[in-house]
Amino acid sequence: MKVDFAKLDRAFNPKCLVVVGDKGISNFRWLRSHMNLPGKVYSVQIDPKEIEGIKALGVTNFTSLMDVPEPVDLAIVAVPREVTPRILEDLIRKDVAAAHFFTAGFAESHTEKGIQLERMLVERSEQANFHLIGPNCMGILNLAQGGLVPGQTQAVAVREPSNFIAGSAGLISQSGMHGGTLVREAALQGVRVSKSVSYGNGSVLDSTDFLEYFGRDPEITEIGLYIEGLKDGKRFLKVLKEVTKRKPVVIWKGGRTEAGGRTISSHTDSLSAPRAVWEAAVKQCGAISVNRVEELIDFLQALHFLSPVHGDGVGLTGGSGGQGVAMTDAFTETGLRVPSLTKDSLDKLAVFFSLIGGSYLNPIDTANENRNNMARIIEILEQDANIDNLVVLVGARSSAGPQFDNLLNALAEVRKRGKKPVATLMPLSFSPGEAEAAGTTIQKLQKVGIPAFFSIERGAFALKKALDYYRMKKAISAG
Amino acid sequence: MKVDFAKLDRAFNPKCLVVVGDKGISNFRWLRSHMNLPGKVYSVQIDPKEIEGIKALGVTNFTSLMDVPEPVDLAIVAVPREVTPRILEDLIRKDVAAAHFFTAGFAESHTEKGIQLERMLVERSEQANFHLIGPNCMGILNLAQGGLVPGQTQAVAVREPSNFIAGSAGLISQSGMHGGTLVREAALQGVRVSKSVSYGNGSVLDSTDFLEYFGRDPEITEIGLYIEGLKDGKRFLKVLKEVTKRKPVVIWKGGRTEAGGRTISSHTDSLSAPRAVWEAAVKQCGAISVNRVEELIDFLQALHFLSPVHGDGVGLTGGSGGQGVAMTDAFTETGLRVPSLTKDSLDKLAVFFSLIGGSYLNPIDTANENRNNMARIIEILEQDANIDNLVVLVGARSSAGPQFDNLLNALAEVRKRGKKPVATLMPLSFSPGEAEAAGTTIQKLQKVGIPAFFSIERGAFALKKALDYYRMKKAISAG
Repeated sequence: MKVDFAKLDRAFNPKCLVVVGDKGISNFRWLRSHMNLPGKVYSVQIDPKEIEGIKALGVTNFTSLMDVPEPVDLAIVAVPREVTPRILEDLIRKDVAAAHFFTAGFAESHTEKGIQLERMLVERSEQANFHLIGPNCMGILNLAQGGLVPGQTQAVAVREPSNFIAGSAGLISQSGMHGGTLVREAALQGVRVSKSVSYGNGSVLDSTDFLEYFGRDPEITEIGLYIEGLKDGKRFLKVLKEVTKRKPVVIWKGGRTEAGGRTISSHTDSLSAPRAVWEAAVKQCGAISVNRVEELIDFLQALHFLSPVHGDGVGLTGGSGGQGVAMTDAFTETGLRVPSLTKDSLDKLAVFFSLIGGSYLNPIDTANENRNNMARIIEILEQDANIDNLVVLVGARSSAGPQFDNLLNALAEVRKRGKKPVATLMPLSFSPGEAEAAGTTIQKLQKVGIPAFFSIERGAFALKKALDYYRMKKAISAG
Repeated sequence: MKVDFAKLDRAFNPKCLVVVGDKGISNFRWLRSHMNLPGKVYSVQIDPKEIEGIKALGVTNFTSLMDVPEPVDLAIVAVPREVTPRILEDLIRKDVAAAHFFTAGFAESHTEKGIQLERMLVERSEQANFHLIGPNCMGILNLAQGGLVPGQTQAVAVREPSNFIAGSAGLISQSGMHGGTLVREAALQGVRVSKSVSYGNGSVLDSTDFLEYFGRDPEITEIGLYIEGLKDGKRFLKVLKEVTKRKPVVIWKGGRTEAGGRTISSHTDSLSAPRAVWEAAVKQCGAISVNRVEELIDFLQALHFLSPVHGDGVGLTGGSGGQGVAMTDAFTETGLRVPSLTKDSLDKLAVFFSLIGGSYLNPIDTANENRNNMARIIEILEQDANIDNLVVLVGARSSAGPQFDNLLNALAEVRKRGKKPVATLMPLSFSPGEAEAAGTTIQKLQKVGIPAFFSIERGAFALKKALDYYRMKKAISAG
């Protein structure tokens, strides 16, 4: 079918949204989660008992979609699966711009009835060029539209609504749970989301359509995808190649293993591809592959904050001797280099660096009195010809300490000059107090354009993936 | 030298502890961190200004170690490096059982003076058979002795003292920072520590001595080590082989890469071994290798709580469809299997399982109405002939929910029967509220003998390492 992006614009910015079949047993989750929407929200429900609860929410209910007195931009359909073909007819008659089918139990259930019902939905949608999202999914989210209420969201409860400020990342997820997790983790870790979509079985509109749409959206500067399978792999790769010319795309593919492939068949009825084939194809299109939530979020954070990464030499500082060993191992094992500093740098360090309790060969240990010279150390690393990237270990609670402002200013200057990428590692304890303090520290760092990664290994991975990305871009543009 | 374990017993359970050279600039960290000790704590300091501060703490000060009016079980030495040979003479004359030298700036500084001073300390200690721990280290900790005060500890600030209850793990770390992190993370994650030691340069007493000592300690049932290098690799492996006959040992080796090896040289002046050689040797001795803090803690948790792991077939439940795909990929990639259930199990599940929104081929999805049948699902998995281990995804906040007690009871029953290991996965958001809730959930699980791992990947890794451990034990005992 031919995707009409103007219709998706309407669905992502609805002046009028209708929820069909919301129920008290789910605490009217779909109506509640759109209470902040600037546009109008109506309900369609025929059960008198449910209508009572809907009226108590202050929402106007109609017993038929056809009764809604204005054009509908987005419908959310949560009726039993048997009823979906009839609802689809109404949606088409009413010329609704797009509909998100939350209802599950179609082809992914591997039941005869489910398969037959899905075939009916697909055939009718394609015939009428109807923009159906799903079925078996959590639908769309546009943070700029305020379509998010504490305690309710697409997929997961939101308990820290203040973090959910609209930003520039676009997230596309075949799984509703992963989609919700990605939105939440991104927001909590300072990767601000613009829009997201969970598309489930992808029977009518597929990941390719949303990728193309997000690729054109000027509000979106980085795209992350979780996908299980594709309807049309060739078209996906063609669109991917186009989109990566304009913005970075990172893809987490579920079902990399044979057993995982069997599992996706019963999740979204998708077919899997062998891992190596998939990764080679994605790379050729200029996108980056990752394997889990953390990796996807970390890559988006790296791309959003780091100045372009062009070299593999890493200068490490901020830790103790033992942390220096751990950092050196982790960065080296990921494929980056931790080279010795130039003679010039070593001479400069020798002037003031105390060797009692610390070494400066790279890493430069500063979990000792040398921390008082952090600004000078960072300046020396920035000027060192062997060093392409600066990485500083920072305590989660450090922003409350007396030396943090000096460190922050020194890092901010390096960032401003933009000659060498600068990142921080912020290993995190399992402790509420530490998580709270880390939230403050990461905000201060990101405010001056510096990413913070929650373990040595996550930071090493993110920097390496960013280098991979910029090298790939260079190779592609060189032809 | 010949290690006298009775002397180490005295050092770990001091009736009389002396701190030599504590200072106001470090807020008298060593005196303060032993305020809870049941035994006596004295200070030795000659600087009148420091003595004032020490008296203000309520601690008796002497201007010479020789003036201390009773036998000394442990001395903590924090004097400038030039003074250490003179202090060592006093320690020997006073017949102190053991001394922890915090002072740094010896061979690890690669300075002529440092190398010479360390040689003096070593030669004199060996000649007098003096039990010197360090230098350049954070020394010893015995949680049963209460040697831990909020805000102060061996290496890191302790802010959650209620978690620091004496348990059964013994931790040995060449690095003070890693030692502190391991103690803190273990405590926070419910892996209770009995004793720990950070031994720095290991110039006199080495990891081997502490391994042998912890191996004989009846209070210690699992041992974790972080080491950078060894004085005598052959003796270490001999002792390791002996100790693993009695209790599990897990080793994190720093300096696995060439660059990491260069870094450990300037940290603790140790020599590194090629990774493959090292790992083969460790395995032959019946110990397990890991590569970072999280892996070490997770392995200890797995060994402490899981019933013996003998098979590689994993039954997965508790998640959504997308989480099922992620779990299947992660467990398969780690080398475990996620097999289809037996026909018998599938028949039983078909009776009650709702396929709308969930599949039960393994994983069994329960992020839907099927969660109401969790107890039956767990029972079916326990009885399934294809399944060797049960793994359940649990929300960090789930213990506050209405269905948690049913789940907990069902899991506790499986644990009690002990036929199949049962573990939980508890993916953790970056959020203070989530960390708080996770703390409650993990405590409830561990109380009935069930471990909880903070990500799908960490749980897969820990279960695989536990299987490796039990298989290795079996192979060794079979000869």
